[in-house]
Amino acid sequence: MKKLGSLARWIRQVLFGSYVRTFISYYAGFTLIGTLLLMLPISLKDADMIPLTFIDALFISASGMSTTGLSPVNISETLSIFGQVILALIIQVGGVGIMLMIAGFWVFTGRRITFRERTLIMTDQNQINMNGVIKLVRDMAIILFCIEFTGFLLLGTHFYYAGYFSFEESYFQAFFLAISMTTNAGFDITGTSLVDYSNDYYVQVVSMFLMFSGAVGFWALVETKDWLKAKLGNERFEFSIYVKLIVSMHIVMTIIGALFIIIFEFNHFFYDKGLVESLFYSLFMSLTTRNSGFQTMDVSAFQPVTHMLFNAFMFIGSSPNSAGGGIRTTTFIVVSLAIVSFAKGKDQVTLSGRSIKLKTIFKSFIVLVSAACIVFTSTLLLSLTESKEIHVILFEVCSAFGTTGLSLGITSELSDIGKIIIIMTMFIGRIGIIALLLSFKKKGGHYNGVRYPEMDLIIG
Amino acid sequence: MKKLGSLARWIRQVLFGSYVRTFISYYAGFTLIGTLLLMLPISLKDADMIPLTFIDALFISASGMSTTGLSPVNISETLSIFGQVILALIIQVGGVGIMLMIAGFWVFTGRRITFRERTLIMTDQNQINMNGVIKLVRDMAIILFCIEFTGFLLLGTHFYYAGYFSFEESYFQAFFLAISMTTNAGFDITGTSLVDYSNDYYVQVVSMFLMFSGAVGFWALVETKDWLKAKLGNERFEFSIYVKLIVSMHIVMTIIGALFIIIFEFNHFFYDKGLVESLFYSLFMSLTTRNSGFQTMDVSAFQPVTHMLFNAFMFIGSSPNSAGGGIRTTTFIVVSLAIVSFAKGKDQVTLSGRSIKLKTIFKSFIVLVSAACIVFTSTLLLSLTESKEIHVILFEVCSAFGTTGLSLGITSELSDIGKIIIIMTMFIGRIGIIALLLSFKKKGGHYNGVRYPEMDLIIG
Ligand SMILES: [K+]
Ligand SMILES: [K+]
Repeated sequence: MKKLGSLARWIRQVLFGSYVRTFISYYAGFTLIGTLLLMLPISLKDADMIPLTFIDALFISASGMSTTGLSPVNISETLSIFGQVILALIIQVGGVGIMLMIAGFWVFTGRRITFRERTLIMTDQNQINMNGVIKLVRDMAIILFCIEFTGFLLLGTHFYYAGYFSFEESYFQAFFLAISMTTNAGFDITGTSLVDYSNDYYVQVVSMFLMFSGAVGFWALVETKDWLKAKLGNERFEFSIYVKLIVSMHIVMTIIGALFIIIFEFNHFFYDKGLVESLFYSLFMSLTTRNSGFQTMDVSAFQPVTHMLFNAFMFIGSSPNSAGGGIRTTTFIVVSLAIVSFAKGKDQVTLSGRSIKLKTIFKSFIVLVSAACIVFTSTLLLSLTESKEIHVILFEVCSAFGTTGLSLGITSELSDIGKIIIIMTMFIGRIGIIALLLSFKKKGGHYNGVRYPEMDLIIG
Repeated sequence: MKKLGSLARWIRQVLFGSYVRTFISYYAGFTLIGTLLLMLPISLKDADMIPLTFIDALFISASGMSTTGLSPVNISETLSIFGQVILALIIQVGGVGIMLMIAGFWVFTGRRITFRERTLIMTDQNQINMNGVIKLVRDMAIILFCIEFTGFLLLGTHFYYAGYFSFEESYFQAFFLAISMTTNAGFDITGTSLVDYSNDYYVQVVSMFLMFSGAVGFWALVETKDWLKAKLGNERFEFSIYVKLIVSMHIVMTIIGALFIIIFEFNHFFYDKGLVESLFYSLFMSLTTRNSGFQTMDVSAFQPVTHMLFNAFMFIGSSPNSAGGGIRTTTFIVVSLAIVSFAKGKDQVTLSGRSIKLKTIFKSFIVLVSAACIVFTSTLLLSLTESKEIHVILFEVCSAFGTTGLSLGITSELSDIGKIIIIMTMFIGRIGIIALLLSFKKKGGHYNGVRYPEMDLIIG
């Protein structure tokens, strides 16, 4: 009896011993529930003809929870309407639910992102007001629902009147896509992603708006709401530096990406395409790497050099506190600035007239290097378990880590061990490196050891 | 006249404006002299039949100066005996000469590695004694010459008595190999690397000794000399923590590498090989990634997963202040320890009972991330200019950056732009990331700007 008690205590410690562990446990729990729901006979179109193995169900659930969008099976052929609704719910929990959880989570775990900090980007030691958190999470939920609903109406109505589908089918497609786009999941229920809409710029513009909203991070959304409110009330409102920063980074990176795609594919994929067509293709595909994973063309038609560029973009991922994955844009910019500062011999890393905290810089490097190690290790392991080219494996891994979901077509051919490796990579990509590393730390486990004498080493 | 003066001043500033710039300029100058010497008609076996283009000569010279060992042409078929001697001299300058230059360089540029620091691994603000530097450099030169000469005798005598070559040829082969091995250059003048000696364990043991001596870093060699001296004089001598560290890291990594090679290739390359044979192959090939680049078998016969492992080992490279390249073992260990410390919630990074300076940790991360960027960028550019698989391109780039010189066989097939990219990568791999970054800084260019208020960002 006593032994059982201590076992229970141990399990509780491992699963819920800290905020981060609790977060990860809930996340894993939801993934498992999703897996079981997808395996219900009612979720499958034809369980006898097209069965769904546990690994494949786990893969889809993990892919949905992490809003990656990779799938070892064709969703529309395998899942029934009921199953597709379940998948939409999984995506919604993984995209919006986790985002709200994270919103609360950062606040509770001493990251203390107060409203003041949000506008001033300064660390404030004041405790967050509980009402503030609740209001923030409620605001977020309302905003995301509004965006999704707008997308649903815009897409569904268009699908019907443009004659793509029947009335019900149009709005069901729109329901699924609006969720899948806003959460940046990238799942589709046609089996061809958005290739059918490659000449439908209306659908593409709506998609890009939804994808962008989901990937840009919730602080930007909350401030946009405040800005709208102020506009309507004829009040003055100034966006915070932080929001200006993440939005402009997102836009600049997307445009740079699009330019590179045009340069690399000018004489290849765009050889026989018109100017507007090429611009739309490159803009959409650039945005999709950041990280919805929808495609208006088959990404394997691009050149290897473009795939390498995509690897970098998927690895960087989207804004922190968004539905996206990867190392996050802020990590990328802080590390880049730190290297430039070092080369210039500066002893501060500055951005918009402020110096970035040493601890933040340190964390950025930890995130980037750990992420690179994870991508490398996954690629190495997959090159052992799969007989595929490193090129396509690396693309699959970057896509999983960035929770983007683009693929050069090997997902369905992966071995079971390969699938588990990709599942782990998506999982880590979504919860983030910081959470992964901090999960090793016990609650309140601040290290109070001896002070050691300092030493130096010859480096690089 | 006045304009000319200011132009001259500007050029002097760019080329010699700081210690780092001076070092790089000398390095580039030597590379260019080597190129010109290799292009002399007397250096070529048959200039009419097998000409040497400027790019190829530059490639060989840069490869020699960086002790990489990659070559777009077959050395023994292209270069005359005179040319081969020139190449041996280039390697010697690049390996030993630069190592001595760096020894002086670190001392002069305020890195202040004093003798006290070398044994205590603590930063000491005392200026280095000029006599100390001269003694150090002289010691180093003598030690390396002794090692090379020992290798020359051991190999030459063996080659002759084992009947590999005629008397002259035996000692000429030994002369070239002793230099190429000790400097970790990896060039050979048989055209088959060490494959002919794949069953000659005497040659392999001697090679491994020479390769290890060149890659382990000069502090270890100097202390070994001191230790020998103490032994002979019956005095007590204790190796410094630093030397113990770099030597044990080198040995441990080599053994781990060998173990992985055995595991990965157990059912493949080693399928029809005996135990001793397999052990020697794996040990030699593991050591060769750290970074001589000699091979006792064709490395392309290994599996892709083994190539990925080699990429990591070549990227990490050898000890600082050695004839090797890469990010250096110390960088790797500091970054690894920092990540583990972060995960454990410690606020110090400790090693052998001492905490590593924050500045050192910061530098390690800068080196690793910059190096990864360079490898990625080179790979991306080569995937644009060459129509080769990413897998072989990445291997070539890691090999060039780690100045290892292993190749999956594309070196001779590279386009001219591709060759220039590899030349640049070898160059950066040899001078090191720190030197590269600091070359942007002017002499005494310490940044004394305004203090900015601190800010925080949400990361990863
Ligand atoms: K996605
Ligand atoms: K080498």
